[in-house]
Amino acid sequence: MEHLNIKPYKKSDHYSYVFGAYSVIKLITERPEIMRGVLIHSKYGDIPSLIRLCQSMAIPYLISDKAVNRVSNNDNRYVIGIFNKYETDISGRQPHIVLINPKDLGNLGTIIRTADGFNIKNIAIISPAADIFNPKAVQASMSSLFSVNFQYFDNFSEYQTKFPSHEPYPFMLKGALPLEDCVRDSSFLFSLIFGNESSGLPDEFSQIGKPTKIPQSITLDSLNLSIAVGVAAYHFASYHDLIE
Amino acid sequence: MEHLNIKPYKKSDHYSYVFGAYSVIKLITERPEIMRGVLIHSKYGDIPSLIRLCQSMAIPYLISDKAVNRVSNNDNRYVIGIFNKYETDISGRQPHIVLINPKDLGNLGTIIRTADGFNIKNIAIISPAADIFNPKAVQASMSSLFSVNFQYFDNFSEYQTKFPSHEPYPFMLKGALPLEDCVRDSSFLFSLIFGNESSGLPDEFSQIGKPTKIPQSITLDSLNLSIAVGVAAYHFASYHDLIE
Repeated sequence: MEHLNIKPYKKSDHYSYVFGAYSVIKLITERPEIMRGVLIHSKYGDIPSLIRLCQSMAIPYLISDKAVNRVSNNDNRYVIGIFNKYETDISGRQPHIVLINPKDLGNLGTIIRTADGFNIKNIAIISPAADIFNPKAVQASMSSLFSVNFQYFDNFSEYQTKFPSHEPYPFMLKGALPLEDCVRDSSFLFSLIFGNESSGLPDEFSQIGKPTKIPQSITLDSLNLSIAVGVAAYHFASYHDLIE
Repeated sequence: MEHLNIKPYKKSDHYSYVFGAYSVIKLITERPEIMRGVLIHSKYGDIPSLIRLCQSMAIPYLISDKAVNRVSNNDNRYVIGIFNKYETDISGRQPHIVLINPKDLGNLGTIIRTADGFNIKNIAIISPAADIFNPKAVQASMSSLFSVNFQYFDNFSEYQTKFPSHEPYPFMLKGALPLEDCVRDSSFLFSLIFGNESSGLPDEFSQIGKPTKIPQSITLDSLNLSIAVGVAAYHFASYHDLIE
């Protein structure tokens, strides 16, 4: 792998990094076709097994403390996977989560992990938005990124034109019906739509589909975005028997 | 305030910091008795109003870019509140959230914000645990820290001895009943109990109260801790009419 220019992540790169032995081994096992290589720190506890795994899948590896530290900013990581970025299309036959302009990498990763956990595995992201392949988002997703479909759209209209059969549920506080009422007569092809961390959804979403609110204390400014997605996704997944 | 030794936060200090004009103004208005002072950066947009507010509440302030940068690690904060740490007791007449050894400051803050949002405003924390007054936790709580009661305990037995009437709901996956079943016949004095980010609850909690699970994809390792608390707290709060 000496020809690879090992350096900290940049959004414009065609590859990204996943940190930690657990995540790297999971990715090698489940998605070997996107693996470009593995960096191993000399302090990693079970180097022989990892090398055997890499060799069995024909994945290049490099034992180099310098390379590991360079990529992880000395964050005490011992194993780093390098993977090729890829594109996925979300399915027209499955329910969606739609994120309008999400900004926080940690929230984005946590939302992906949550969506995976509640079996709503198709996520639309409306640009401008945080970079889903940023190692911080990958890490917060606990590798769930590799188990879901996600697709970026330039604006909400583009998304809606492509999926006209999906029933939109914009989550907002003003003029919206409580979650429990909305889920009760929802169709299986639902789109749960959330605004970003600082501004929520623009007012015009109150004219789209079935605006839904999560009941909460009147003194609270708002819930954390990933918590709102978690509560909503659990309810819809539970009602439609996606989890048990 | 020149006598104050302005420096980055340390756990052993008797005071801590809250960042951002919104949070500082909220704290001055709601809890002036704990305010020790306000640091203001010369670039802050409305210095005269903030000074008037401080003066009206007899709270010292200092305009000093150097002091602001020192405390915030140059994180582009323009207003910083200095507040005295304090102790609160949780109420025996209200439901609880119980966190066993939480480690992550961001999760701890997000959980406090969520508990506040769902009106479960009494939080027990079993040591060793993250420092609730760390500015990162305060910030993630979006100042909800100042609207809830929290109390540290050395171990779970100490907590349980003090609140024998509370019905324990340990959240775990093994040998537990689904959330929907558990909430349905729960009493108002409930304790929602969660393990920490890496290891969850120890097995012995399956012998305590009513072990409860949040249904989720069998392929997922686990939900993020704050998401699990959010989904559980919403369900119990909703069932007991704490939110509407």
